[in-house]
Amino acid sequence: MSLSREEYLPNISYDSVIFGFSGEKLKILILEYHNMKTFALPGGFVKVDEDLNTAVHRGLSERTGLKEVYLEQFYTFGSMDRHNPEIMGRIMKEQGHSDPDHWLLGRFVTVAYYALINYENVTPKPDELSDSIEWYDYDHLPMLMMDHNKIVDKALEHLRTHLDQKLLSINLLPDRFTMKDLQLVYEAILGEDLNRANFQRKMLSLDILERHDKLYSGGSHKAPFLYSFKKKTKT
Amino acid sequence: MSLSREEYLPNISYDSVIFGFSGEKLKILILEYHNMKTFALPGGFVKVDEDLNTAVHRGLSERTGLKEVYLEQFYTFGSMDRHNPEIMGRIMKEQGHSDPDHWLLGRFVTVAYYALINYENVTPKPDELSDSIEWYDYDHLPMLMMDHNKIVDKALEHLRTHLDQKLLSINLLPDRFTMKDLQLVYEAILGEDLNRANFQRKMLSLDILERHDKLYSGGSHKAPFLYSFKKKTKT
Repeated sequence: MSLSREEYLPNISYDSVIFGFSGEKLKILILEYHNMKTFALPGGFVKVDEDLNTAVHRGLSERTGLKEVYLEQFYTFGSMDRHNPEIMGRIMKEQGHSDPDHWLLGRFVTVAYYALINYENVTPKPDELSDSIEWYDYDHLPMLMMDHNKIVDKALEHLRTHLDQKLLSINLLPDRFTMKDLQLVYEAILGEDLNRANFQRKMLSLDILERHDKLYSGGSHKAPFLYSFKKKTKT
Repeated sequence: MSLSREEYLPNISYDSVIFGFSGEKLKILILEYHNMKTFALPGGFVKVDEDLNTAVHRGLSERTGLKEVYLEQFYTFGSMDRHNPEIMGRIMKEQGHSDPDHWLLGRFVTVAYYALINYENVTPKPDELSDSIEWYDYDHLPMLMMDHNKIVDKALEHLRTHLDQKLLSINLLPDRFTMKDLQLVYEAILGEDLNRANFQRKMLSLDILERHDKLYSGGSHKAPFLYSFKKKTKT
């Protein structure tokens, strides 16, 4: 653990909520410290001469192996009741550190980011601090350390509110997809079943889809239309 | 200047973009340090044992005299190029401080908040650090210190994107108002003229307005309808 006090800003951290989806279920990437049965979001600290956004991408890459993920900042958590030096002390003790004045035991204001990726395209790798990294179903998350469950809930609230705008910048679907594929994305993220006709009407009214020829499927007259996202144009 | 190192978190600050509106123009509340011809957003620092959100409300009250303003956090700015120890050094020298290692000369990650208020209802008061506090038209803002102009632009972008949702929580209009009053709010914030018929159609489709009897205006048959916002119901 080479987190020396001189190298990092004290009292500031970041956490990443990585949502994964591959056509059916919404999942979240969680680190586990096995010996302590402690679960946490991947997070980290900002070097004294490093841009905050650079630090977040570096940290995500170091802790999960994921690179070039589009991360969106959504909220900064700064209440006193998120301070829990006991849990951090235990994690550090496992690593052979026992300085009671260590800067990592201080209070942290954490800047939170989220991303939504196709989890089949990536193989996360745990870093040296944690023992494993796994995808967990959103509706069967373990209890996370500190306020990390609250951070997940706020990330999902943000994602749900902005889903129509986010569709174009996230990369969950193949280049061409059916209306049914798109509906599955919405249903997994909103956590509810949607009416097929209403959903189709709403999506078409957003004016972000381009319709293509029907998929040739060996003579069936019920082959679905394929869609792609319209190319963004400068406005 | 009683900002002792032991009392505050280093490297973390906050800034507030207070938009003011009173029926016509969008304005922003700006502090000025006269001797240095320096303009800045009202901001401040977080005490070691203080919630971030509490600090922001305390700071706004101390620096501007405004109390109980509904502030919304919108982004945390953490790039290295916002670090400008020279300007902070000059402000502190004016106050009789010249320690080159003072914590206030360090790099700050700043959490930014905005509010939208009726500026006719408040009388801002400058604090002891700054010499005056004034409302400036958004389209005639002075050059602000550090990245404060960029912070204002991002706040306005956020406000514009979320205006439909924000209408209910902001307090810019009397209890009952005309469609014209509402259109003036939108035009000032969006910075463009809107078509009356389209605007009315869009507002009614949002399902947030309740229509009341026409204002009695001495026999005119052209008196406008009055509206109020529907009471929020738990969903």
